[in-house]
Amino acid sequence: MMTPQETAAVLALRDRWSRLSRHQQAIEFTRLPRGAQDDYFLSLETAAQAELLRLVPESERRVWIRLLAPDDAADVLQSMDTRDRSGFLDMVDEATRNDINALLAFKEDVAGGLMNPRFARVRAEVPVEEALSYLRRQSEALKRVDQVFVLNEDQQLVGTVSLATLFLADPAESVSTVMDAQPVSVAEGLEQTEVARVLRHSRLAAVPVLDAQRRMIGVVTIDDIVDVIDEEASSDMQKVGGMEALDQPYLQTKFFDLVKKRAGWLAILFVGEMLTATALGYFEGELDKAVVLALFLPLIISSGGNSGSQATTLVIRAMALGEVALRDWFRVIGREIFAGLALGCILAVIGVTRIYAWEHLFGTYGEHYGMLGLTIGFSLIGVVMFGTFAGATLPFILRRVGLDPASASAPFVATLVDVTGLIIYFTVARLVMTGTML
Amino acid sequence: MMTPQETAAVLALRDRWSRLSRHQQAIEFTRLPRGAQDDYFLSLETAAQAELLRLVPESERRVWIRLLAPDDAADVLQSMDTRDRSGFLDMVDEATRNDINALLAFKEDVAGGLMNPRFARVRAEVPVEEALSYLRRQSEALKRVDQVFVLNEDQQLVGTVSLATLFLADPAESVSTVMDAQPVSVAEGLEQTEVARVLRHSRLAAVPVLDAQRRMIGVVTIDDIVDVIDEEASSDMQKVGGMEALDQPYLQTKFFDLVKKRAGWLAILFVGEMLTATALGYFEGELDKAVVLALFLPLIISSGGNSGSQATTLVIRAMALGEVALRDWFRVIGREIFAGLALGCILAVIGVTRIYAWEHLFGTYGEHYGMLGLTIGFSLIGVVMFGTFAGATLPFILRRVGLDPASASAPFVATLVDVTGLIIYFTVARLVMTGTML
Repeated sequence: MMTPQETAAVLALRDRWSRLSRHQQAIEFTRLPRGAQDDYFLSLETAAQAELLRLVPESERRVWIRLLAPDDAADVLQSMDTRDRSGFLDMVDEATRNDINALLAFKEDVAGGLMNPRFARVRAEVPVEEALSYLRRQSEALKRVDQVFVLNEDQQLVGTVSLATLFLADPAESVSTVMDAQPVSVAEGLEQTEVARVLRHSRLAAVPVLDAQRRMIGVVTIDDIVDVIDEEASSDMQKVGGMEALDQPYLQTKFFDLVKKRAGWLAILFVGEMLTATALGYFEGELDKAVVLALFLPLIISSGGNSGSQATTLVIRAMALGEVALRDWFRVIGREIFAGLALGCILAVIGVTRIYAWEHLFGTYGEHYGMLGLTIGFSLIGVVMFGTFAGATLPFILRRVGLDPASASAPFVATLVDVTGLIIYFTVARLVMTGTML
Repeated sequence: MMTPQETAAVLALRDRWSRLSRHQQAIEFTRLPRGAQDDYFLSLETAAQAELLRLVPESERRVWIRLLAPDDAADVLQSMDTRDRSGFLDMVDEATRNDINALLAFKEDVAGGLMNPRFARVRAEVPVEEALSYLRRQSEALKRVDQVFVLNEDQQLVGTVSLATLFLADPAESVSTVMDAQPVSVAEGLEQTEVARVLRHSRLAAVPVLDAQRRMIGVVTIDDIVDVIDEEASSDMQKVGGMEALDQPYLQTKFFDLVKKRAGWLAILFVGEMLTATALGYFEGELDKAVVLALFLPLIISSGGNSGSQATTLVIRAMALGEVALRDWFRVIGREIFAGLALGCILAVIGVTRIYAWEHLFGTYGEHYGMLGLTIGFSLIGVVMFGTFAGATLPFILRRVGLDPASASAPFVATLVDVTGLIIYFTVARLVMTGTML
């Protein structure tokens, strides 16, 4: 039991933790009251646990690694170099080592890699009273996950029941009468985002993991899933922001990594955007005759980029939450084209008003301001419609060919729309202005 | 118990659900096997539950509203018009009605509005055996949340203990010896994002809610928090994408709302971007003399926008996860300025290489290509540095003045950087080219 001072020390460190360097973290951690270190260590993220294990004196490592549940220990080992792993594996007892090795065979981001292989189990046909006394002998598993799993003689899952339900049931009834006989479960190879979706939808606190023979091999709990949800949202948001996912807290990312994860996409976007220089080269004649067209160039193309950014963000997020699937493309694209039309008209009205107003107030644009207004208005409608269309379509195409829809980042869509946007702009200008300004 | 066919029907509907219209949802729901409807209804989101309650025949409403826990019923009522509420309130028993009315007094997005007011409670000084038999009389509460809360005679929280721990403990010991006497708790007025952070960090499945007198008034469970986390991530991502948060699934958003939530920001950005036309007006002389400058305009300003988008996305997400706080601004801005310098240099090298290569291959840029290359190179470094600086700074400023940092959307930063970017570009051009091209 901690004193209030100790609790305060823990809470204060918790608050500063993610802003400390790894080395400072290790120092602060060793300064914590001994009684507080256990809970603190267990509440850390995998990467921080791995780093601490590396930094504490060798004599203490055994204590910490043994504190971890097999699934968490496997995650920690997975985040280490293969070279470091065996030393840590030697520190745990044989049963745990076998569990960890089994878990290491799974990829980190599938149900099998997330699961805890220890769970409380009972038989369906025994009376509740007998099941409860059998559960008392499974105390370690029950303390971690209080869901109880009902298996048959082949270790296949036939039902689930919460400890509370068993505890409250008539002791003479059989387990099968109180269990949920249609339990939700996931396959060992299911990806973590899908596991998260199952837990979200079923509102369960834990979901059993089955192997190919439908034998239960572990359980994924909702606290693991909260991490998955946070990670996925961070990674999606960073990709939509036009960079590689950072995969670790911002202040703990090394400067070189920070630049590397951004430089790649920035350079790709830059090379893509070079096409605007090429495309504009074809319209140099128009620019020479009517320099006023250059004044509105950033305004036109950025409107396409902004509307594309909105559309792609909406579709990517809806896909991530499972609200939109591939087969919905027709409905989504249909909506987006009309949304683009409506939004384009709104911007066109603002743009044309501005040109007419400035002309009447300051005489900015000369005798052909009417033609200029028409060009700007029609270009805006075309560019915004194309922007929303491209922004909504790209995530579908990426998912269709098996890539991550979140790669259809807002800057990527904006670049695509910039090139197309200026072609639309100058084409409209040619149609409207030839004979007057051009 | 459901037949496999019924289970299959439920799973199939679950998969299609979010893509159906509200009306189709009601029809499909009433077609579900009766035994499956309960679970299905409970697993739905608040908005969908409210809609279903409105669509089912009046005679059935009572059944469904009574199925909901008081906190969920309060959420459902909160999402209805005030006019509709009283009818539904009349359908529940008095105890539940009192609970619901108490919950309705809280804002929906604070701990008090999220909590379930029913929870299992015991006294610290009683033996475990007595506590367990007392818990059997609190079956409804225990089935929902299997954490047990230890209160003193003033209803103040003195500890927590899981049902599993009590169940496994020596029956003769007192509850106080097995409980956690320093339990994590939240205040009734704490915002839901902060509640989510507490649950994430403590790795608890449920957290007690205390009033100003430290009396326990309810419990927030992790499944409520998963919804909060999803909502916040969606809302942040949509704001970063340059629009208002949608607050409901994409395909269920009415077309008019979809346009409205996007048109506002799009129009603001458009009006902001009009400054580029004004700023370019000041450089019309330069554009007239060296039309080649216009060719690189989109390239230069979009590079600033893209690097700003990266920086703002990183900072906003790090703030949302609590990895970065206001006091870290100096470290963050410092890193970003250097990151901007590094990224700017990388783009400058690519840009200058392109100009030199095109000149040598195609003779595109004429005798002053060297000056043009210098202008492009220095402009890129300046614009990218300004972009990262502005993108990283804006979220801090917004949070400092009490606004949502996520409003520093990528398109907003891009617009800001577009205007500044072209001023940097033409200023560099004047410095480098005066006497040759200008």
